[in-house]
Amino acid sequence: MNISSRRISRCFSRSATSRRPHFPCVEAHAVRESQLRQTTFGSIPSSVSSTESSESGPEPPYARPNPKSYHVYHDPAPLELTYASPLPSFDVAYETWGTLSPEKDNAILLHTGLSASSHAASTALNPAPGWWEKFIGPGKALDTNQFFIVCTNVVGGCYGSTGPSSIDPTTGTHYATNFPIVSIFDMVRAQFRLLDHLGIDTLYASVGCSLGGMQSLAAGWLHPERVGKIVSISGTARSSPSAVAMRYAQRILMADPNWNYGFYYDKLPPHTGMKLARQIATITYRSGPEWDLRFGRQMRPVLEQSPDKPRTPALCPDFLIETYLDYQGEQFCLKYDANSLIYISKAMDLFDLTASSLSANHLITSSLSASTPSLSFTPHQTSHSKSHPPPANPPPHLIDLAEGMQPLAKIPTLVLGVQSDILFTVEQQRETADALRMVGNEQVSYYELGGVWGHDTFLLDVLNVGGAIRGFLS
Amino acid sequence: MNISSRRISRCFSRSATSRRPHFPCVEAHAVRESQLRQTTFGSIPSSVSSTESSESGPEPPYARPNPKSYHVYHDPAPLELTYASPLPSFDVAYETWGTLSPEKDNAILLHTGLSASSHAASTALNPAPGWWEKFIGPGKALDTNQFFIVCTNVVGGCYGSTGPSSIDPTTGTHYATNFPIVSIFDMVRAQFRLLDHLGIDTLYASVGCSLGGMQSLAAGWLHPERVGKIVSISGTARSSPSAVAMRYAQRILMADPNWNYGFYYDKLPPHTGMKLARQIATITYRSGPEWDLRFGRQMRPVLEQSPDKPRTPALCPDFLIETYLDYQGEQFCLKYDANSLIYISKAMDLFDLTASSLSANHLITSSLSASTPSLSFTPHQTSHSKSHPPPANPPPHLIDLAEGMQPLAKIPTLVLGVQSDILFTVEQQRETADALRMVGNEQVSYYELGGVWGHDTFLLDVLNVGGAIRGFLS
Repeated sequence: MNISSRRISRCFSRSATSRRPHFPCVEAHAVRESQLRQTTFGSIPSSVSSTESSESGPEPPYARPNPKSYHVYHDPAPLELTYASPLPSFDVAYETWGTLSPEKDNAILLHTGLSASSHAASTALNPAPGWWEKFIGPGKALDTNQFFIVCTNVVGGCYGSTGPSSIDPTTGTHYATNFPIVSIFDMVRAQFRLLDHLGIDTLYASVGCSLGGMQSLAAGWLHPERVGKIVSISGTARSSPSAVAMRYAQRILMADPNWNYGFYYDKLPPHTGMKLARQIATITYRSGPEWDLRFGRQMRPVLEQSPDKPRTPALCPDFLIETYLDYQGEQFCLKYDANSLIYISKAMDLFDLTASSLSANHLITSSLSASTPSLSFTPHQTSHSKSHPPPANPPPHLIDLAEGMQPLAKIPTLVLGVQSDILFTVEQQRETADALRMVGNEQVSYYELGGVWGHDTFLLDVLNVGGAIRGFLS
Repeated sequence: MNISSRRISRCFSRSATSRRPHFPCVEAHAVRESQLRQTTFGSIPSSVSSTESSESGPEPPYARPNPKSYHVYHDPAPLELTYASPLPSFDVAYETWGTLSPEKDNAILLHTGLSASSHAASTALNPAPGWWEKFIGPGKALDTNQFFIVCTNVVGGCYGSTGPSSIDPTTGTHYATNFPIVSIFDMVRAQFRLLDHLGIDTLYASVGCSLGGMQSLAAGWLHPERVGKIVSISGTARSSPSAVAMRYAQRILMADPNWNYGFYYDKLPPHTGMKLARQIATITYRSGPEWDLRFGRQMRPVLEQSPDKPRTPALCPDFLIETYLDYQGEQFCLKYDANSLIYISKAMDLFDLTASSLSANHLITSSLSASTPSLSFTPHQTSHSKSHPPPANPPPHLIDLAEGMQPLAKIPTLVLGVQSDILFTVEQQRETADALRMVGNEQVSYYELGGVWGHDTFLLDVLNVGGAIRGFLS
């Protein structure tokens, strides 16, 4: 403890015995790698359990994954995929809260963000707090007195559902990057196979935030007759190039030699790459104004600081904002599978409900029947739209999006965005609401929230996000 | 050519002979490294000349650095540093345009952004276009018929001025990370030593964009009696935590093993880390709306695409925005010294004209004399301020900033920002203008530009940026 404190304080100071400066922030990687080498690695989850056990903010630590802490639905039949041959069989990990009514008409399918597990809230099987603990329960936004809530780990993930870290039944080894590219639609298809298994024909609502918002729209799009209401919080109907850029920057983890083209399951995982990816992600999840308030320009405390001398800055993290990012990266780097991050972030990039994209990917002809879009689309004029009319002169991409979103014309939809969100901007939210209104959806509830939390608002703002959901669902 | 095209098109497709997929984007790093190993490395500039020769946008390629293409002022006396013992001696590389008047009263000191050289515009010595080619010349924003313009490479840089890649005269080897931490003030101190050498006592104006805007303010702050006017375009008087975060993310290059704690000058440089850093930087330099217009969701062309099948996406770059970022990173990664990026980005993080920061770093007592700030500061009320009054109830940090900026109270200052800039936000620009008005500066010209170019607007918008400068200087 003393030694490491001393080393930190001497970051970049010239050593008395050597001219080569110390870089504790860089040396820490080597120490971490050395510790990892001493650990026996199996699957990522088992490696996690041996090294990590602390809290890391609103998302739950998957410190000690326990197959008995969630349910797993195994489907022995193939899963159709958008971009590849079907998966021969698949698992979906899931958890539930509340009680399914005898009519099975009170089910809410809750979709997760990128790195979340099915553990949205504590359960009898797993009493640890979930990533949406304050939003699920009696009288809460998702009221367990009223609703039966199902949350899954997405296909492509690493928390019990089939993903790149799973064993390929045709080879007996980890899929790694032989795992096929999956789409948001594929994730939703797997979820509906679970609903079939549970005997749930019609959802009261499909609810999700971020990636979950995309899934929520995709659920209504694939099965308009089975989805009663849609909630999309800080999601999008069409990923923007800047969001693609921000996720692409996270896929720099592929440059970590430990990534090894995705084949690392019996080796050291790309923990450094994952740490850097999470640092970048954290920048996109929060907002500058929040950091102004929270960290300002404060610097980390330094031992042995002389009051008579100016503080000597370091090339290693110096400002609290830097140590915060470093900590966020360190906390995450062994809790989530690098390949899952790559595959799921790619699925988010590919999500695009414009008619031209759906058509190019053969999604319209294969999935739409009665509601095949007409390319001579014109915006509907309805009485309801008078107070919230669709745009008068929509640009071509918005017309294209509205054409693609016609299956959602009859589903009451809540679209909620946050003005300080730089990843899923309010422009994206407005576009989604506008497109729905253009196809004549008369039940679009649209909110924009202020505040300084950026994209992470959906994890934090129980009052406003929770309140909007509760009001919309009731 | 055929082979590489085939490999790209097969990105992620399963090979017939092996189950391991191809990743051309990752393999390209290995190919690049192999090519680099075959090259004899000297200093970074000489290594660059052997491998790079293409254009890369508005900044000039430093493809074939030629010591005869710019001037070098060598100062044998020590350079005082904010955070460390003085540099024993130093060089400043510089270029000039226009003619110094007999009275030596028409000089403009032009300050550069982070990675730019002194080559702001073409010269007789170096006819290649400079990074501000369209802003410098007869009748242009910096009118060479009227002004004598001096541009330097900053201390800490790698284009002829003393920096981490320079030889330490006390050891005979590259400084590397034994180079001391430098501040924006240190860069400006070196520039004024050059001005002394040139016999220029008083500047007509100090002009800069981005990092250059910081230097421009610092020049006026250090030498209020020697600076006639200040132009700060997309700069700041106090780096924000989100800008620190975005630069910290670029310093991930320190995780590249080739970085080797900064001691790579006789080895392979951290080209992968630099490429990733540049990709991140590019995201912070441009804006989402520009990418919407420029790239939208277009994907790169794929050979062997069957019209009957949906396109198979790749985990490697797929969207044009990704290939653009990849290209930007590749173009940059051997053109700039990694240690210079680390040191100069750190200097930007540390820049803070608040009285509390200046005091903590002993800059107020050592540099200010007559204008020592009073901590019982109250905003001035002047007649001029009626149309652009300082804020009525400034928050504490703004009062702190105004106290620190009192030396700038009498210098006419142009502050210009861009609403789509996410790195140096308009809030930062407003803060700078407000602080100047609070100390009674009656000649603050303040503009905000729209447009979609983000931070890079200063390189591109000749009409509006150039026009504002020309108007202010005349």
